[in-house]
Amino acid sequence: MPEFFNVLPPTQALQVLLNRLAVGAHGRAPLVSEPVPTADALGRVTAEAIHSPEALPTFPRSTVDGFSLRAADTFGASEGLPAYFTVVGDVPMAQAASVSVGVGEAAIAYTGGMLAGNADAVVMVENTQRVDTTTIEIVRPVAPGENVVQVGEDIKIGEMVFPAGHLLRPQDLGGLTALGITRIQVARRPRVAILSLGDELVAPDAQPAPGQIRDINSYTVAALVQQAGGLPVLLGIVADDYSLQLAAARRGLELADILIFSAGSSVSVRDLTADIIRSLGEPGVLVHGLSLRPGKPAIVGLVDRKPVFGLPGNPVSAMVVFDLLVRPTLYHIRGCARPPAPATTTARLSRNIASAPGREDYVPVRLLAENGYQIAEPVFGKSNLIYTLIRADGLVQVPLDCGGLYAGAEVAVRLFW
Amino acid sequence: MPEFFNVLPPTQALQVLLNRLAVGAHGRAPLVSEPVPTADALGRVTAEAIHSPEALPTFPRSTVDGFSLRAADTFGASEGLPAYFTVVGDVPMAQAASVSVGVGEAAIAYTGGMLAGNADAVVMVENTQRVDTTTIEIVRPVAPGENVVQVGEDIKIGEMVFPAGHLLRPQDLGGLTALGITRIQVARRPRVAILSLGDELVAPDAQPAPGQIRDINSYTVAALVQQAGGLPVLLGIVADDYSLQLAAARRGLELADILIFSAGSSVSVRDLTADIIRSLGEPGVLVHGLSLRPGKPAIVGLVDRKPVFGLPGNPVSAMVVFDLLVRPTLYHIRGCARPPAPATTTARLSRNIASAPGREDYVPVRLLAENGYQIAEPVFGKSNLIYTLIRADGLVQVPLDCGGLYAGAEVAVRLFW
Repeated sequence: MPEFFNVLPPTQALQVLLNRLAVGAHGRAPLVSEPVPTADALGRVTAEAIHSPEALPTFPRSTVDGFSLRAADTFGASEGLPAYFTVVGDVPMAQAASVSVGVGEAAIAYTGGMLAGNADAVVMVENTQRVDTTTIEIVRPVAPGENVVQVGEDIKIGEMVFPAGHLLRPQDLGGLTALGITRIQVARRPRVAILSLGDELVAPDAQPAPGQIRDINSYTVAALVQQAGGLPVLLGIVADDYSLQLAAARRGLELADILIFSAGSSVSVRDLTADIIRSLGEPGVLVHGLSLRPGKPAIVGLVDRKPVFGLPGNPVSAMVVFDLLVRPTLYHIRGCARPPAPATTTARLSRNIASAPGREDYVPVRLLAENGYQIAEPVFGKSNLIYTLIRADGLVQVPLDCGGLYAGAEVAVRLFW
Repeated sequence: MPEFFNVLPPTQALQVLLNRLAVGAHGRAPLVSEPVPTADALGRVTAEAIHSPEALPTFPRSTVDGFSLRAADTFGASEGLPAYFTVVGDVPMAQAASVSVGVGEAAIAYTGGMLAGNADAVVMVENTQRVDTTTIEIVRPVAPGENVVQVGEDIKIGEMVFPAGHLLRPQDLGGLTALGITRIQVARRPRVAILSLGDELVAPDAQPAPGQIRDINSYTVAALVQQAGGLPVLLGIVADDYSLQLAAARRGLELADILIFSAGSSVSVRDLTADIIRSLGEPGVLVHGLSLRPGKPAIVGLVDRKPVFGLPGNPVSAMVVFDLLVRPTLYHIRGCARPPAPATTTARLSRNIASAPGREDYVPVRLLAENGYQIAEPVFGKSNLIYTLIRADGLVQVPLDCGGLYAGAEVAVRLFW
């Protein structure tokens, strides 16, 4: 078939695209950024390096409840020769120390509270004995700095908190608020326009006439876009007509950062998609056809520096191609230096899976528990049925250079949470 | 210390709570549900079983481009003895078949299109030869049903699409829209009230005076709540005062389905939290203290059928306890039958980790690549520093019954994407 003139393995196809997108020293696409409140920044990607405006903590903090004192005064203390300290006061939580310790003096310290003036260590309350109302006995020495978080020990002033391209996790939001950074610059969420192509498609709320089916892939793909941090823009269903599809695609490129054709399933319609991508602008189609099953008829293109994908109409294919090509592209244009690894689990194959060398295969599997092991059982059902994917818990990859996998093999199962 | 009267392993502590929450045949908490558009239902949990209102597909569909015909007419066809068929028309995409085939007749079929009347199989176009404008030659027989998706083969009418308690993935949304189900009943997002306790805490936008620090854990915990499908309700900072905290906690229980005390760090404040949970209602404190490091001082409670957690003030502890107790509780009250496994990756330990039998340890690690392996390197830094967690890529568990882990051991690393 002439359309598959340069069938590539998925990883190479992705590289062809990312190479064309790369600019700058880090080889990343330029970021368009926006400010967001830190509290809303979970899963966003930093658009610039963030440096600490202050030291953390700003004062020496006790890590235990006990007594702050000068460590040197405890040296040599033992059960046989206890050291005695006069308790000269306390440093209440949330307050600057109003008391200082001299030789043989101690001040009550609370976990998270400040040390008394001149104190350089804290003795845990469990390691002390009250002798009388103002005197304690210590039978073990402490080292200078013991049970203390020093000024700047968490982070120093001017230290880099995050480089550009960092995907923000729950603890990262806590670390920013700890420094008083309540607003940060992050990569804008890429908008992904999704066009559903096909005379046979009707909207989900319509009743299909014989020969028609409801649009499936738009909604699956939109959810996958959301999971990868993008904003889906559903452009609806477009009939198999060159000029209608070209106009809709142009509108998609205006509105969005990435354009996805959720393709009609017949060969003639696939050809139409490639023609339209060529008509949209330069360089147009970069890859047409992948050494992948399902997913062979996928198209990868680029128009005006915006990635364009032609996803096969087959639901399993569309999901596999999205995962291998669109997802990493989304993280790339968000400037994310280390995209999260897709969710996987390991399991043992219940039966042999045949494949062909020179092609990556993805096989839907169901996960079962058996004798304490997790078993991956291939799901029967044609890959053009959406329920094949719904009855599956994940996909097993049969690598490119492999003729198949044997029953009992330990495999990684890609999950779609 | 009297407060740790019933220190439990985290999994047992969770079970104590879930047993008290369980009702009904499936041992799940009662669901409060709400209708949502299917397109917005990613990551939501079905509140009731959904059955298919129709068969899918509703008509026999071709899976290839070719010719639909009666399979029996191809039996015996071979290179030496081809079968000849008269092409009597086509069935255009999106249309009901207006043509039927008789003996020795075929109709043009498109991928995804309907079969001609009386046809029961499709021959791929690649396996045919045009003889003249109305005649094709076939050299290989097809079986009845070959290259056809039968009515109801994807899903049958009345078949269960999802049971109650199903966490909706991208493909599930596609499967529902395929059936015209554009609105579904899902578990309401649980509201989780978060109280930050401590005289020393100030809001992130305030400048802390000496002895004060900004609130960290509220924001980390709020993000963890979001990741587990909950809605965080930040109730702000409350000073170390019994009646103030009790009033704030009562308000939290009114507003939310789960109440979290992000605890002040000193022992006296921890005691206050337990007292408040006891004052809130029955049964109050269920577990006080876990055989866990960090995270030992955690509290698990229940008031008016609403889970209540006292998280330690230490950021690493708070995150570990959330992950082991609050996250599974959130999925439980959402009615989720199979919560997604936490994100993990496997790596080799770079050095020994010491632990103590009878206690689960969690150690922050950084992931490095070395000779093609992923290496987990323990992060130095006190666990009461938020940046210990930020500099880490994940946490390694040292199991309860284990005295430690050796360098080179393969370990699962819990990631926090």
